Amino acid sequence: MVMVSPLSEGLARQFAAIVGQGNALTRQGDIAPYLTEYRDLYHGLSNLVLRPDSVDEVAAIMRLASKTKTPVVPQGGNTGLVGGQTPDLSGAAIILSLSRMNRFRDVDSVGNTMVVEAGVVLQTIQQTADRIDRLFPLSLGSEGSCQIGGNLSSNAGGTAVLAYGNTRELCLGLEVVLPTGEVMHGLKRLRKDNTGYDLRDLFIGAEGTLGVITAAVMKLFPKPRGRSVAFIGTQTTESALALLARAKAAGTLTGFELIARIGMEFAVRHIEGARDPLSAQHHWYVLAEFSSGRSDEDAHAAMEHFLTDALETGEADDAVIAASGAQADAFWHLRENLSWAQKPEGGSIKHDIAVPVASIPAFLAEANRAVEALIPGVRFCTFGHMGDGNLHYNISQPVGADKAAFLARWHEVNALVHDIVGNFDGSISAEHGIGQLKRDELLRFKDPVALDLMRRIKQQFDPAGIMNPGKLLS
Amino acid sequence: MVMVSPLSEGLARQFAAIVGQGNALTRQGDIAPYLTEYRDLYHGLSNLVLRPDSVDEVAAIMRLASKTKTPVVPQGGNTGLVGGQTPDLSGAAIILSLSRMNRFRDVDSVGNTMVVEAGVVLQTIQQTADRIDRLFPLSLGSEGSCQIGGNLSSNAGGTAVLAYGNTRELCLGLEVVLPTGEVMHGLKRLRKDNTGYDLRDLFIGAEGTLGVITAAVMKLFPKPRGRSVAFIGTQTTESALALLARAKAAGTLTGFELIARIGMEFAVRHIEGARDPLSAQHHWYVLAEFSSGRSDEDAHAAMEHFLTDALETGEADDAVIAASGAQADAFWHLRENLSWAQKPEGGSIKHDIAVPVASIPAFLAEANRAVEALIPGVRFCTFGHMGDGNLHYNISQPVGADKAAFLARWHEVNALVHDIVGNFDGSISAEHGIGQLKRDELLRFKDPVALDLMRRIKQQFDPAGIMNPGKLLS
Repeated sequence: MVMVSPLSEGLARQFAAIVGQGNALTRQGDIAPYLTEYRDLYHGLSNLVLRPDSVDEVAAIMRLASKTKTPVVPQGGNTGLVGGQTPDLSGAAIILSLSRMNRFRDVDSVGNTMVVEAGVVLQTIQQTADRIDRLFPLSLGSEGSCQIGGNLSSNAGGTAVLAYGNTRELCLGLEVVLPTGEVMHGLKRLRKDNTGYDLRDLFIGAEGTLGVITAAVMKLFPKPRGRSVAFIGTQTTESALALLARAKAAGTLTGFELIARIGMEFAVRHIEGARDPLSAQHHWYVLAEFSSGRSDEDAHAAMEHFLTDALETGEADDAVIAASGAQADAFWHLRENLSWAQKPEGGSIKHDIAVPVASIPAFLAEANRAVEALIPGVRFCTFGHMGDGNLHYNISQPVGADKAAFLARWHEVNALVHDIVGNFDGSISAEHGIGQLKRDELLRFKDPVALDLMRRIKQQFDPAGIMNPGKLLS
Repeated sequence: MVMVSPLSEGLARQFAAIVGQGNALTRQGDIAPYLTEYRDLYHGLSNLVLRPDSVDEVAAIMRLASKTKTPVVPQGGNTGLVGGQTPDLSGAAIILSLSRMNRFRDVDSVGNTMVVEAGVVLQTIQQTADRIDRLFPLSLGSEGSCQIGGNLSSNAGGTAVLAYGNTRELCLGLEVVLPTGEVMHGLKRLRKDNTGYDLRDLFIGAEGTLGVITAAVMKLFPKPRGRSVAFIGTQTTESALALLARAKAAGTLTGFELIARIGMEFAVRHIEGARDPLSAQHHWYVLAEFSSGRSDEDAHAAMEHFLTDALETGEADDAVIAASGAQADAFWHLRENLSWAQKPEGGSIKHDIAVPVASIPAFLAEANRAVEALIPGVRFCTFGHMGDGNLHYNISQPVGADKAAFLARWHEVNALVHDIVGNFDGSISAEHGIGQLKRDELLRFKDPVALDLMRRIKQQFDPAGIMNPGKLLS
């Protein structure tokens, strides 16, 4: 049985000795930032944060944890949105911070690979790639503080998935410390390697419940030489869907984001310097980006060709192409700050869902109807990665409603929306993962045979149950 | 313990009753084609081939097999190159042919997905996609007979991996019958779904040792509107590597194949109608293909730009761009028939290896030196998917040598080459898998911790050991 009483001082000293006193945080003031998270939904307790700086130290920590049945919660940049990085309230768990494991072990511009340690901040990877004239495409709101180990453990998504895939698709190999302290050496820099079961993808997205990712081989890409970004007004989600199909055929589509009218209103009202790029109002907006291996002009040519046809067919009502890099950035800035723009409007009940792309219009119609019937006057601030079928179906409270009373209905609204997602054979967590937030909902929607296999894998990899307990699987 | 004596008549009748007599082959003449394979390296024995046509029938077969500890060997188009689809000589195993499960359950041109059963032939998928103006990019020599279930179980590669990935990257969801007969329903048509462990990728590439894939959701892509194919002569593998980097930056590179001089000689000598596209001889050849979402002209423009620079820098010595679709096909035909062209030249000891792309020149220099020292006079007919670091390092016998005596040194040469692959942190099976052929070699090269995890997963999923026994893991 895994330990459930607070970590003893004697054991804490043994753990601290592995990393050295300077890298073991024991004062509650120092530990506090590791115990809460961005949305303030989860609070945990712990007496010890360990900051190892090598795979050997991580292995030694896991060996001792395994021997003493001490729960271990791995933590990267602490930017997760589902409580996967927060310990429980028993105080029994050690927090294993990967922040000091932040070296680039290899950068290969010929093979287009990087070997990075788990604690490297995403933005640092992007910048390092940029300096050798390569692109590392993973891009998220929290890129300035999230770490690649966390991105891998949560299989992070973001705005570049449409063209480059999730974090999973960007990874070629992993180094992982198992709950026992054994090290799996899998840092292969190969595009093809059919030598047995795909363990890499088992650890990716496992939210730290099967082992600790300590390093990874990530793919690099040629840097696009040009881009073209447009803001498009359209009438319906059906016409947005038609735009998506047209855009995919017209060029190298590297972004296709949907925004509901109310999102644009919130943005203009609350994001400093934000302006509606279009003169008239539209029910829906699409932010589309084309890239080119050659030039901005080439990307613009594809965009113009696409928009000419889209306006002619009536799929688009109006559109504007960013005339400069600064304007393109402003369009993206508007999209990326929609979550923030909702805050001054009161409570927001959020969903990170996916449905088959073709089902988006039907899903939204049905979900909006059901939620409006439950809570009249709510404002549907729907936006997201339409090209991936992934919507942040965020529901702002009715104007003037009581925020706390509205938020108290979070789970009720979630359950209603998730049922509809289930009817469309969708996902209740498209890119944020399960963590603590959706652990119980998972039981309602996951295929029972798959759930059973997951439990058996967990039991086989982590028989003592010390690896991020209470997350993903209950 | 799994059954090791031939299947009894009584049990055979019970199994046959599940699919109906007409779909149970019991005469050795009917069974024979299922017991051998293309390269004639493996011969097996069996008294029963079952041809179910539904997931329910497959589940019933696996339930009975599980209860009676009867080994089951799933088989698709029987085109595998490592003996993964061939039963052993005990005669105990049933062959489970998926050929009759060949329906398209869904084709979605808006969401760009297809739900296909395991027995659909790859070429049929390509053609069905083509008819709705979409591309299914997986492309291999055996595409006219291999089946998608086999492609998934072996994570097949081929010539389009550079741009579109392996079969793994083309799959969104799976339906799998477990060894117990339970069915995992995972036919999700979602681009993003972070709800737990990635079981899909565990079954993909598992070579039928963890369960039977009965259906899959595959991705479709916009059909390129144009392509440009060039044949390029170059001096060294280093210059070929420089060409690769340049080509990647110049456009949408959808093919980059390397061919050694001797391969060109064999091709011209033995492939009907094959001509050397270039007037002078070169040490190495590259077949490069660019695609365009717009037009042939657009693809040609990228190719011309690339080749102008490549000739100017001396990375390329000469090049010719295919002037027509027919000529482009002829270039590819030459590349795709290199294995056949080797046959009249006597024995060929083959390797399907990968190394980090940047290590290709050093690897080839070292491997050639070592093999030449072992067997003077061998002819290195190296060719393959250079863009993926994946070479078919095929070694033709010395002129006039005894074929049988040369082939008798297969394992000796393999061991030597694999050791060098290991030194470069490469893969001993880039795209063909392990099967029976490389099962023992795997033990020498796979990380022992990974091997142990593989064995534990196998034990957990298939405790009776009935699922394609003796393949991949011993």
